[in-house]
Order: sequence, then C-alpha cells, then structure tokens
Amino acid sequence: MKIFTLKDVASHLKLSITTVSKALKNYPDVSPKTKKRVLDYVESINFKPNTHAAFLRTRETKLLGIVIPNLSHYFFNNVIKAIIDDAQKHGYMVVILNSRESYEKEVSHVHSLLHQNVDGIFLSIAQDTNSFEHFNEIIETKTPLILFDKISKLVSCSKVVIDDRKAAFKATEHLIQNGRTKIAHFRGALKPQIAIDRFLGYRDALEHYGIPFDKNRVLICDQGDEVSGRQAAKTLMKNKVEVDGIFAVTDLTAIGAMGYLEQHHYKIPDDIAIIGFSNWQISGFTKPALSTVNQPGDLIGKKVLQLFLQEKEAQKRNQPFEYETHVIPTELVIRASSGAPK
Amino acid sequence: MKIFTLKDVASHLKLSITTVSKALKNYPDVSPKTKKRVLDYVESINFKPNTHAAFLRTRETKLLGIVIPNLSHYFFNNVIKAIIDDAQKHGYMVVILNSRESYEKEVSHVHSLLHQNVDGIFLSIAQDTNSFEHFNEIIETKTPLILFDKISKLVSCSKVVIDDRKAAFKATEHLIQNGRTKIAHFRGALKPQIAIDRFLGYRDALEHYGIPFDKNRVLICDQGDEVSGRQAAKTLMKNKVEVDGIFAVTDLTAIGAMGYLEQHHYKIPDDIAIIGFSNWQISGFTKPALSTVNQPGDLIGKKVLQLFLQEKEAQKRNQPFEYETHVIPTELVIRASSGAPK
Repeated sequence: MKIFTLKDVASHLKLSITTVSKALKNYPDVSPKTKKRVLDYVESINFKPNTHAAFLRTRETKLLGIVIPNLSHYFFNNVIKAIIDDAQKHGYMVVILNSRESYEKEVSHVHSLLHQNVDGIFLSIAQDTNSFEHFNEIIETKTPLILFDKISKLVSCSKVVIDDRKAAFKATEHLIQNGRTKIAHFRGALKPQIAIDRFLGYRDALEHYGIPFDKNRVLICDQGDEVSGRQAAKTLMKNKVEVDGIFAVTDLTAIGAMGYLEQHHYKIPDDIAIIGFSNWQISGFTKPALSTVNQPGDLIGKKVLQLFLQEKEAQKRNQPFEYETHVIPTELVIRASSGAPK
Repeated sequence: MKIFTLKDVASHLKLSITTVSKALKNYPDVSPKTKKRVLDYVESINFKPNTHAAFLRTRETKLLGIVIPNLSHYFFNNVIKAIIDDAQKHGYMVVILNSRESYEKEVSHVHSLLHQNVDGIFLSIAQDTNSFEHFNEIIETKTPLILFDKISKLVSCSKVVIDDRKAAFKATEHLIQNGRTKIAHFRGALKPQIAIDRFLGYRDALEHYGIPFDKNRVLICDQGDEVSGRQAAKTLMKNKVEVDGIFAVTDLTAIGAMGYLEQHHYKIPDDIAIIGFSNWQISGFTKPALSTVNQPGDLIGKKVLQLFLQEKEAQKRNQPFEYETHVIPTELVIRASSGAPK
C-alpha cells in the first residue's frame, strides 16, 4: 500500500498543505465545498494523517515510556496497569521496557525512548544504577521524567514513593505488640534506598520499644525471592539464633521462610510470627495467610500519570512547575501468619 | 532546546542531506574528511537523527503493539514479558494496550496502533468481539498481525495457541485415572473458543472412558475468577449434585471452589479432587497446592515475536510468507489437590 502524505493530498487537489490540514480539522475558514473535496479524496485513498505528520506539527508523539527493573513483579505489574489504563483515557500509549536491574540496560532504554521522542518517561531505578547522567539527558530535552518506588534524591524531577521506613516500623511494631521480642529482619540488598529504609524502620521500632538490636538477627536476602527467604531461615536455625518473629523485606522472602520453618516443625505464628512486605496476590492464598504491608501499585501508577499531565500542562502554558515527592500511604494487612502465640 | 533535523545539519555544512545521512551511517563513499566534519558538528549541537526522520526513510518505527483483554492476568503478563524481552534484543519497543474484554476498546486500540505506524500488532481477542473488520484493516496496511491465545479462525494471519481441547482432555483424564467418576466442569463463558474447547476436551474424556455426561455437573464461571468458583461450588452443593472431582477452567476458579468446599468440611482431594488450568504463580502456594495445566506464556510470547520477525523479513525480501497456526505444547502439573482418595 502506498502511504499518502498531506503533501500528496495537497498536490493532487492543487491546494496548499495548510488548506488540506485545516479542512481535515474542520476549520471555519475553509469553504464547505473545499472541505468536501478534501474529505472525499482522502476517503477514496484511505488516507490517515499519521502521527509522524502530527509530530512535525505538535512535537507530541502521544507515547509514554516506562522503564522498570523487574517485569515479573506483581507490584510493578499493578503500577504499569494503572498507568496504561489512565494513559489510554488521555490518548497516550505506553511503551514498557525492562532494565532487569541493569544500569547499562536502563541507560540504553532511556536513549531509545528519547530517540522515539516520547512525551514522558516514568522510571524505577535498577539495583545496579549509581550514576545519574542519563536522567539529566532526559531533563535537558524537557521531557517530563517521573521516578517511582526506586528513586534517587539526587535527581531533580517529580517522584512517587511510599514511606518505606515508616511502613517497616509499623510492621515490626505489629510483631512487638503481639508479644514478640526476638525479631529477625530478612533485609534486601545493601544499596537500594528502599532496602535501607525498611531496615531502618525495623531498627527504629526495636529502639522505640526498648528491644536490643542484635545483628545476628539481620540476614540479607538480596534477590528478594522465595529461595533467599528459605536460605535465610536455614541460616538462622543453623546458627541457633533465637527468634520468635520475622519481618521480611518482601512477601516472597516471607513465604520462603515460612515454607522452610514449617518443614522443620515450627508452628506459624505460634512459634514464629511472620510479616512480609508488598501484598502480592499470592500472600492471601498461603496457609497460614501472610500478614504484610500493602504497597498500593495502582495508586502509585495513578499519581505518576497525574504528575506527568500536570507537568505537561504547565509546559504548554509556559508556566513554572514545581517538582514534588509524593508519598502514597501504605497500610498493614493483618492475616494469620503474625498472630499472638496461644 | 531546538530540535535539529538532517536538513539543518546539511544546510549548515553546505552538504546534501544524503551525504550527511551517509556520513552518519559511516558509508564508504563519503570521504573521511567529510565524515569528520559531520560528526564534529552533530556532536557540537547534540543532534540525534530522530525516529521520525528514520521513519520517513525506512517506513519503520521499531514500535510493536500488544492488545490484550486483561492486564491483571498472570498468564498475559508472562506473554508480555517474553515479548518485551525478546523485542528489546531486536531493537523493538513494545506498546501495551488493555482492551478490558471490550470490542469497542479493541477496535480503538487497533486504530491508535495503525495511526502510530507500529511495525507489528500482536493481539488476543476480547470476549465481546464478534466482528473482525478491524483485523482486515491491519492486514490491508501490510502490518504483520499475530493473534495469540484468544484467536479467530476467520482471520487470515499467523496465530499462536495451545491445544485447549487436548489439555482439557488430559486434565479430566487425570481425575478419572485417580478414580473419579462424578466429575464437574466449571467452564468459562459461552462464546470464547478457548472456553468451548476446554469444555469439549472435558466431554471427550468422559466419553473416552465411558462415563456418562451429566449437564448438571457443568457450571458457567464466566468471570473466571475466585468469586465465580466459590459461587459454582455453592450451586453444586445447594442442588445436591454428587461430585468427586472438579476440572475448573482457570486456577482462580479452582481456588475459589477449593476455599468454599473446605469451609464446608469437604476434604480436598479425598472427597473432591480439583484441577485448574493455566498454572498461575499462586497455584503452587495454596494448601493443598493446586494441580493444573501449565500454559506456557513465555513460550507463547517468544513464538509470537519469532513469527513477526519471519514475516517482516519475508516482506523486506519481497518473498511470500505462509501463515501458520503454531500450537505450543502444555503439560499437566500434578500437585496435591488432585490425588486419589485414601
């Protein structure tokens, strides 16, 4: 099929490109007769003014890009879904890219998105990333950038986060209020801010309730998955560390720990109470069902899109736009795994 | 920031656009001196030949579009993930659109994707869709179209499916081989081919093993979710239909049924053996863990992208391309919920 351009239409009808364009957009200063000629002809050749022509006019592609570190992640899928659904309502389409926690991939994806002239970029930072030059490249092109979940305070843009430290405090506090005093923390990797903050929240809670901190009760689960949760539980038992509660950095880690402990005849929650973080779909289906912190991916996604639309609007009106870091509230989801001992 | 075009670069350097373009692509027929002039200048102005210029040259956008009926679906997320990861390797970016089982949304998304001049469209048909004109629009533009999972035999394009009927036969057969003879089927909605095929596979198995078909044992769970599974189990019990096995159209339906039955003191699998369909992540975490049919989303996604690349390659070489319907094998995943009675 030949792809027709505005110029082809104009030249066939012996009109100016401007007239054709105005006719297609039903401007009042084009005569009804001319409009009819244009519309009849474009219909006959199945012409659709394409986005590339539109781009040359508006400099908008109506494309948005999301770069996330892990596509197998229930939480990120919820964020993506909310962004896609709301973006559709505003006439945007969303490109999804997976950095797989790699700095190089993240940089390359950012370049691809800039190359596609997307209208906005939403990104959650990969575990490997510790240089931020690629974010400055985005900002220099005046493409709105919004960081979410895994952010850096060093980048000047809008951000959407939860208060990981406070949420971790609440989760640990819940175990303490259920009579637990020997609480382990299965933490995430050392670098990511969210893992640091969840660890700090755990420590804050112990301190607040006068419970001594014991570094033997902190184990690293840097993959955040079931296997690392099982492994950490095994290490605790092997080292004969006394434990009556576990606050795990993710639901999968908690589920891995729970599986290992039950196999080794510990009763959950009687012997060891467990709470996870994120509220994955699976957490409602384990037995006992897993207590956790609900990390509302849908609200985060909605806020990301809203901040983008506001920034875009400000740009169009040539108004100043103030970046904000928006904190989405979390809540404890108390199920059976964290009850008080009988 | 001013956005520079090839034309700007050419006019500044007093070269032809072709020469500039060839210099940027390091063609041998441009002198090293000219190449250096071009490269130095484009670097100084931070020029990046953008995709819109590239499109005008190659008619390729390096964008692919996926339209799926449900973004909250573990299976579809696996398909998407596989397509995104493989597309990245071939320099494509993927736009995701959610039809939410609506025909109107599906049509509108197809138009948006054509308008964006995507290089390929991959689509799983919405439950509401029963007119296929929008697929012909795709085919007319010579944009490769690949249907997957929910397909229609009436559309002339490549397709990637599983053999739902055979898989359902195997699942039902497994219950029969574990001594069950009063097997209910919680089926999907009436229209979608996959729901019809799974029902037919169930009926085939009963027939093959000489077990009479009883329509009271077939209940419709058209949402395919937990709630509809609970509801169907409740209906069975209320109507006092004797049942010793259930083959459910999805894992969530099976999990809903299992939850209801356990609350009403049925032992799973002793009293009633249950098998689901799809192998969602949660199915390994229920107690008893759910037997199911593994529907390999990753393999389906990989095949979709592979068929696209083959069709694109054939187009470029002006070679004929024969559409095929590729059937991805499934396998039974036997866990605790479908064991023989003690």
